[in-house]
Amino acid sequence: MLNVAVLGFGTVGSGVAEVLTMNKEAISKKVGQEVAVKYILDTREFPGSPFEAKIIHDFAVIENDPEVQLVAECIGGATIAYEFVKRCLQAGKHVATSNKELVAVKGYELLNIAKEKNVNFLFEASVGGGIPVLRPLYFDLAGNEITEVAGIMNGTTNYILTKMLGEGAAFADVLKDAQAKGYAEANPAADVEGLDACRKTCILSALSYGFHVYPDAVPTEGITKISEEDVAIAASAGMKIKLLGRTIKTADGKVCAFVAPNFIPVSCPLAHVDDVFNAILVRGNAVNETMFYGPGAGKLPTASAVVGDLIDAAWHLDARRDLDWADAEPAKMMDVKELELPYIVRTGEDEAKVRAAFGDVQKLAADGYLLPKAMKKADIEKAGLQLTAVRPVFQ
Amino acid sequence: MLNVAVLGFGTVGSGVAEVLTMNKEAISKKVGQEVAVKYILDTREFPGSPFEAKIIHDFAVIENDPEVQLVAECIGGATIAYEFVKRCLQAGKHVATSNKELVAVKGYELLNIAKEKNVNFLFEASVGGGIPVLRPLYFDLAGNEITEVAGIMNGTTNYILTKMLGEGAAFADVLKDAQAKGYAEANPAADVEGLDACRKTCILSALSYGFHVYPDAVPTEGITKISEEDVAIAASAGMKIKLLGRTIKTADGKVCAFVAPNFIPVSCPLAHVDDVFNAILVRGNAVNETMFYGPGAGKLPTASAVVGDLIDAAWHLDARRDLDWADAEPAKMMDVKELELPYIVRTGEDEAKVRAAFGDVQKLAADGYLLPKAMKKADIEKAGLQLTAVRPVFQ
Repeated sequence: MLNVAVLGFGTVGSGVAEVLTMNKEAISKKVGQEVAVKYILDTREFPGSPFEAKIIHDFAVIENDPEVQLVAECIGGATIAYEFVKRCLQAGKHVATSNKELVAVKGYELLNIAKEKNVNFLFEASVGGGIPVLRPLYFDLAGNEITEVAGIMNGTTNYILTKMLGEGAAFADVLKDAQAKGYAEANPAADVEGLDACRKTCILSALSYGFHVYPDAVPTEGITKISEEDVAIAASAGMKIKLLGRTIKTADGKVCAFVAPNFIPVSCPLAHVDDVFNAILVRGNAVNETMFYGPGAGKLPTASAVVGDLIDAAWHLDARRDLDWADAEPAKMMDVKELELPYIVRTGEDEAKVRAAFGDVQKLAADGYLLPKAMKKADIEKAGLQLTAVRPVFQ
Repeated sequence: MLNVAVLGFGTVGSGVAEVLTMNKEAISKKVGQEVAVKYILDTREFPGSPFEAKIIHDFAVIENDPEVQLVAECIGGATIAYEFVKRCLQAGKHVATSNKELVAVKGYELLNIAKEKNVNFLFEASVGGGIPVLRPLYFDLAGNEITEVAGIMNGTTNYILTKMLGEGAAFADVLKDAQAKGYAEANPAADVEGLDACRKTCILSALSYGFHVYPDAVPTEGITKISEEDVAIAASAGMKIKLLGRTIKTADGKVCAFVAPNFIPVSCPLAHVDDVFNAILVRGNAVNETMFYGPGAGKLPTASAVVGDLIDAAWHLDARRDLDWADAEPAKMMDVKELELPYIVRTGEDEAKVRAAFGDVQKLAADGYLLPKAMKKADIEKAGLQLTAVRPVFQ
């Protein structure tokens, strides 16, 4: 019998308890022994909950109970969650978490402790919610050199952009609607400013390229500056606009990671990922291109990923999953301004002047121009034109 | 050092040798020891190939060499390949294969031998080519009860349907074009009659529901009967037509597997999977819905999946991946005619008569009608109308 402690009985934590209970028989059969929730840690009481009797308030009970082999961390943030996860790993317990901030900020340190203690530290739910993506990226595609990962990884912003492009509505109006529907938080900054996508991009970078990329190494632009002109430009170019987190292995072996609104041709499968859905596209030198699509958030989908990790830990109690990376390597990073990418610029300058600067551009709606070849953003900005927007095209 | 033997130096086998060589350093690092191709078995010689020196013609050399721990079977078919795989497993070697026919027909038997010998028998490449789907389905989504898997799993037919829908071309003309481009074989029956998709559906069924589903238990219709009227109906309904392999867990716990052209609303991500691409959509009671997209065939993509399996076997040399299923359980199968599904029918009968039979139908182009609710095909056929086509809608 394997005992699980769930840390935090919020949306994800209660989902984990529910999935482990609802599918208990099938999960126990797959694992080869019973898997059961023993404790749920929360500061609150939950009178009337079917899990009421399992609620405890003292973390030390979990830490000191040798019968608890598996821990699901669903508290969020990188303070209390960090301390508890560290202590669980040090106590020889396997930990699964949905906490992207924790992994993006403390992943290297926690993986090191897990390695030292020969336990699993798994975090499939931290990127793409319920979508299996980290394990496929790291394990299934292990025969590839990964050359790029690009993801629509924030449901709130994707919902807002879908409405802006579909209905021609303005950002502020759609945000209000999203807040009313519960898709956006009262303080939506972490979503709309791109921080959530940034953290997920850090995790994808580390898994793809083998060293930790911290959030401050990932230039991040959210969706607040996307205008009706951008929407018109996208339509005229046969493209969509999506907030992408991208991490690219450059030709000279460096890594360039960034979060920004990208124009995406409708021929690309990412262009059809709408509403609150997420998708992560992975390019490798053998597989070429594959994409993982599904619910990027939500109680049961996110719990599905956490429970998948718990089961994987149960399968690898002794021979841990060797999912490690090195610490940050600033010398291996390239600034996105120095990477040649296809761009669409917006400028009120005369078309002749734009052509003089960039060559045979394709004129789009709303003073938009598709540049004729991939360029460095640094060089675009040096061209001496007044530019209202400079946005990459995902190709 | 781990030694690999590659059986068959055709498209996939040569891809496996190429990927193992091209990414040797990264693969050896991930595995923790060197992984190298020792033998390539083929009846032919390959003068000038970089792998010329590794080509052998006698299977017994591989079978009897204890230094060969890993085998990639890329011969195809279920005769020679079956014998060689069985003998490799019996000799205690781990086997990865891209061979869907072998797994669909002999999977139960071969998994049993693998279990007895405590070796891995893995076949990620057998469904969806390079797309990671079997391992995510079985392992990552292990916390779910799988309720349905539906896939576009044959690139040839998807290419033909994309052209038929996009250009209004007739089946026979597009087939000729596909043959000229190398997307369809001279004898295209296994693709266009749905047999290839049927085999993959068998494999997905077994992994999802725990018992072997043999091809003769999967009613299979290909794309040869899709007409210009079907194309017109799809357009008028805001749908696409795709050849789907589907396997469904019914409300009373039975399994219904079939291959047939399905109408798919454009709001579904499967509707946007075009040309030779594949995608497999998985529904589970926790994750809700997730989809895996990518190249369903091709030398390096398929090799990516085979090599991923070899690496997974290398990680699990002793503690094998417990990916087993029971033999066929005919009593648990339901005929698709007995399953309630949404349908579109085509009939030359008077609309009033159609309404009298089925209620408030939605009239579409070319004598097509969307039925107002899910029905059993058996009941539709009993309604006393002359029906030209009865096709399910994927919802």
